[in-house]
Order: sequence, then C-alpha cells, then structure tokens
Amino acid sequence: MTKVHNFSAGPGILPAEVLKEASEACINFENLNLSLLEISHRSKNYEKVMDEARSLVKELFEVGDAHEVLYLGGGASLQFAMVPYNLLRENGTAAYVNTGVWASKAIKEAKIIGTTKVIASSEDKKFTYVPKGYEIPADADYLHITSNNTIYGTQMKSFPKSPIPLVCDMSSDIFSRKVNAKDFDLIYAGAQKNMGPAGSTMVMVKKEALGKTGRNMLSMLDYQVHIKGGSMYNTPPVFPIYVTMLTLKWLKKNGGISWIENLNQQKADAIYNEIDRNSMFHGTTAIEDRSFMNVCFLMNKPELEPEFDKFWKEANISGIRGHRDVGGYRASLYNALPLESVNVLVEVMKAFEKKFA
Amino acid sequence: MTKVHNFSAGPGILPAEVLKEASEACINFENLNLSLLEISHRSKNYEKVMDEARSLVKELFEVGDAHEVLYLGGGASLQFAMVPYNLLRENGTAAYVNTGVWASKAIKEAKIIGTTKVIASSEDKKFTYVPKGYEIPADADYLHITSNNTIYGTQMKSFPKSPIPLVCDMSSDIFSRKVNAKDFDLIYAGAQKNMGPAGSTMVMVKKEALGKTGRNMLSMLDYQVHIKGGSMYNTPPVFPIYVTMLTLKWLKKNGGISWIENLNQQKADAIYNEIDRNSMFHGTTAIEDRSFMNVCFLMNKPELEPEFDKFWKEANISGIRGHRDVGGYRASLYNALPLESVNVLVEVMKAFEKKFA
Repeated sequence: MTKVHNFSAGPGILPAEVLKEASEACINFENLNLSLLEISHRSKNYEKVMDEARSLVKELFEVGDAHEVLYLGGGASLQFAMVPYNLLRENGTAAYVNTGVWASKAIKEAKIIGTTKVIASSEDKKFTYVPKGYEIPADADYLHITSNNTIYGTQMKSFPKSPIPLVCDMSSDIFSRKVNAKDFDLIYAGAQKNMGPAGSTMVMVKKEALGKTGRNMLSMLDYQVHIKGGSMYNTPPVFPIYVTMLTLKWLKKNGGISWIENLNQQKADAIYNEIDRNSMFHGTTAIEDRSFMNVCFLMNKPELEPEFDKFWKEANISGIRGHRDVGGYRASLYNALPLESVNVLVEVMKAFEKKFA
Repeated sequence: MTKVHNFSAGPGILPAEVLKEASEACINFENLNLSLLEISHRSKNYEKVMDEARSLVKELFEVGDAHEVLYLGGGASLQFAMVPYNLLRENGTAAYVNTGVWASKAIKEAKIIGTTKVIASSEDKKFTYVPKGYEIPADADYLHITSNNTIYGTQMKSFPKSPIPLVCDMSSDIFSRKVNAKDFDLIYAGAQKNMGPAGSTMVMVKKEALGKTGRNMLSMLDYQVHIKGGSMYNTPPVFPIYVTMLTLKWLKKNGGISWIENLNQQKADAIYNEIDRNSMFHGTTAIEDRSFMNVCFLMNKPELEPEFDKFWKEANISGIRGHRDVGGYRASLYNALPLESVNVLVEVMKAFEKKFA
C-alpha cells in the first residue's frame, strides 16, 4: 500500500498499529469469535475497554479522583450546550473568550441557556491571534476558552489564571503537550482530531463543579447521570471509544505526553522554519500564537496554487488544503503524524521554490 | 474461526460480509490508501456514504420527499429528549403509551419538557402485553409509541390509527417487517439493535411537523438544524454510519423488507413453537403480542438453569441470558441472525428436554 502523508484537519491521522488492531476487532474481538460491533456493551470484555479508556485520560492528565471522565456521543458541538446547561446557574453569568468559529458556536449555545458575556475576542483581526491580558469577572459561574483554533491555526501557549472554574474545549490539541489539567474544572474534546475516530467526545469534569444550577435536567444532558452510569447510562459509541482507548495506549506506550510534546515541537519547528525561510509562502497568524497542531500558510503568489497542488499531490501528501472559510493551506500535525511526513512536505516546499522563485 | 450463534439483545449480530467490509475500511477505504477512521467527513467519498445511508432508509420505508432522514449521535436515549423538544408546543400536551422501561424513560424526559399524559400502559402486568383500544386525545401534539419492547419481548402487531402526529421508537425492530412508514411523523431507532453498530441513531421525520413549538432551540437538539446541514451540521459518527449503510445495502440486496419479514417469521415460528411444545419452558408474554425480535422464556424448573446454560454454551450459542430486570432467557432474532442459529437453539432445547424431563 502506498504511504500517504495524511495532514487532514479532522477526522485526522491515527497510528497504523491502532488501525490494524481496530480492523481485527471488527472480525474477532479478543478471541471471542465475535466482532466488537455485535457484542453487548455490558459484556466484561467491553466494560474493560471503557474502564481503560477512562483511566488512561486521568493518567495522561495526571489527575486524581476529584475528576471524572466520560465518553459521550453527539460531538463537541453537543458540549457547547451541555457545558452551560450543567454549569451556568439559573441567574448566573458565563464568561467566554472568542477565538474563532468553534468558540463562537459555543457562545451561541450558552446564550440560549443563560446570561453569557464575551470578555475577550480576536474577531477584530479575523481570529489570527489569541487575546491576552483580559480581566476575568470573579462573579461569573465559569470561564470558557478554546485551547487551539483549528481553522485559523492559533493556540493558547499558556492558560489564564482563573479565579472562577475554568472550562476548555481542547478538541484539536488534547494530549499534544503538557497542561496542568488539575487547573481545569472541565475539559472536553471531540475525539476525532487528536485522540481517536469520530463518534465520541471525551469530557473530564470535577465532580464538585456539578449539581449547582437549580435546573431540572434532561437525563442525557446531565453529566451527573452519565457519571453515575459509569459513562454507560445508555449504549455508548462502542467502537469509537475502543479505538480511542487504543490510541491513548499507543501514546502512553511510546512515552506519553513528554515524548509527544517533544515530537510535536520538532514537527512544528520544521514546517514553521520553512514557511519563514521560503520566499513563496507566509504564515497567517501572530508568531507567538502559532498552533503546533494546525499550521496555516498562504502562497505569496496565489495564482501559483494549482502548481503547488501538483507538487504535493505528486509526493502523496493529503489533506493540506485550507478550511473553506479561510483558503490557502493548512497542515495538521496531530500526534500520529510522523516527523517523516513533515519532512516530505518541507522538501516539496523547497523544490517548489527552486522551480518557481 | 468457530461459528458463534449470536443472540445478543444489542448491540446485536451483523452480517459477516458487512463486518468484513468494515474491517477492510479500517485499513484502506475505497482504495484511498487511507483508513475510513482518518479522513474528513467532508470528503467526496464519505459524503457518498452519508447520502446512501440516508436514501436507503427512504427506499426501504418507501417514503418520498415529505420525510427527511438523519443520523445523530447520542443514542435513542437522546431522542427521548429531542422528540418533545422539537414537537411539544410550549403550552401543548404530549401523549405516550407506556409499554416498558424504554417507553418509561421517554415519558420521563417528555415530562421535563412539557405536559405529558400516559394514555395507556401495561405496567399493571409487568409489561407482558401491549395495551389496545385506548383513546387518543385529538388535541395532543403527538402520540409516542414503542414498536417493540426488547426487555419484555412484546411487539405491536398493528399500529394505532392516530388523529395526531404519530412518533415511534423502532430501535429494536426497525426494518424487520413491513410498516406503513408514511403514517408516521417521526420514527427513530438506535442503530445497534437491527441496523448497524452502536454510535448512531436514525431519525426519519416529516419536515412539516417541525418548527411549531415556539421554543428557542439549542442547535444540536434541533432537527431543523441537522436537516439543513444534511446530517453533517457537525462531525457525524463516521464509522457507525458507514457500517449501518453497509447493513442496509445487504438487506436491500438480499430482497429487502419482504424477504426479511418472511425469514424473521420463520425464525420466530421455529422458536415459539418449541417453547410451546417443550415441557421444560414457557413463554412470558401474551401470545398475540409476542415479539419476533426478542423471544423471552423461562424454565419451568428454574433450578435447572445452570444445566441448561451448559447445554447452550456447548453449542456455541451466545447472548441468550435474559435482561437483568426480568431474568430467564431471551433469544434476540435480529435480521442478521440466520435461521440456522435458531435451529441450533431449538435442537439444544429438545436435547435438554430429553435428558431432564
């Protein structure tokens, strides 16, 4: 099979050994002579998968029993609603930082549920930087931030010191670098960008943050119901959670967060150095806020895009077209992308410059 | 690989050829040299999968453009909330028939959203029959029924003629028999019992039923938002929908609903005839309401259960232990279960009688 260099922004690349094991489980899961797709989620074999998927998150985040881990269906978009539904008191206020399309969508849902204030925004410069130095209202119920902005290629390099519960959408950079997870009351992430396939969303929440809104809650939107059910209040997305578990196991086995942080730094350095050096391209974001996961760049002569497209396609590169809202190029460097793939892209950029500069 | 006779109540058995194709797609999807698990849901190849998964439902249900088909995350349990959220007017009333645990859960969620009346129930006899002859209030916003009750093994053999919009949870018998789908304003089904693996839920809804509640709606709970997004308002559960599409294609290819209805009738006849004939067992439900999907039965001498368990395990039968709420045995005869497996179970019951009667 021809090796494809997969820079897809999400659903994104997964480790080859994980895909192989997932493929096998579709036919014969753990020598049961049954497919993982056709057994009860209440079977011992699957309960072990769920337990491991949950405990690996706590281990990689280095948190203790104050936090609970859930895997839920519906995507991170459902969390845009569930976060305020579970944390915003009936007469309270929620504070949000607006760093892009996804943050804006989270804000929209929170406003339907209760009073919501945008305390900082980078919309004035088309979300090409991350706001800093804003004041966090001490009387708000929580502060919601987005750690990495997939579409614009910006990333929070440090997190605000928050006097109120801190909530973070980490969908596109979870487990890519060291964070002090204990500082967060709630972290959520759609699995399909950096921890598994599409179909499940990880939520890690401090138990003490819950049960304070005064709201009569729908069961499926209530984190406490899911916690009580061990993340199996109803049938969970069995296969997506299994593949996520395998991916986290792969990460741990290879050296965990410190290993991947180092590798991701190398990948990001390689491509950003080339963007800055190469006379044909330029970056799109404030340099200090550059994302190590999604590297956005533009051609200096956009009319040459079709020529560049030929170059990278020839090199078996896939998925580097920019998001439809911003155009240009975006190379996503998720955990499973090897440094080798980045080097191939860098070589393509060099060769392109040599021919067209 | 030893053949296992898989009577699991859900997630349930899927066709072997579907599992094989699913397994292959985990490694190399449609010769892209990429796994289905690591490509964009916006890619042409996947958009085709989603289109086909949606249109196969309309084809098998023989409905036209008045209905829309969605695949959503969160399970049928999320639909317990979404149905009233989308159909129950701010000052309206919803009518429910209570035929078991799942119907009761649907009622619980509806009550959180608005006025909800239970117009008929079989709780008086532990849900061992299906209520009939009840009056449907003409001024209610909709009537909610459950076509098949997985835990108790009862099934609606005909549906009420409803003067108001009819909503049906068909999670455990969808596409197992002919129904007049046009009579329903909304049908939903968690895929994992009869149409695919866990992780996605099919919703088919009449467009004209929507947009009438006066509610300011959360995006992810709003059917109209999902319809507008072509069931891709956000990243869908990619792989579960793919496997569902393959399963529906398998059903169509083999002869569609009339083929499977006939086969399911043969399977149900074989086992119910044996339960009625065999001196060691008895059925648990009203005979006219017996489910063709979930066949519940008890031992006449419960103390012999460990002996019977040895018999069926010896025959490579799996998943016939009854639900923890009711005990005994439950053989689920979902579409992909071959008649051969039922015959094996019948032979085991005969052999057991011969030894212990």
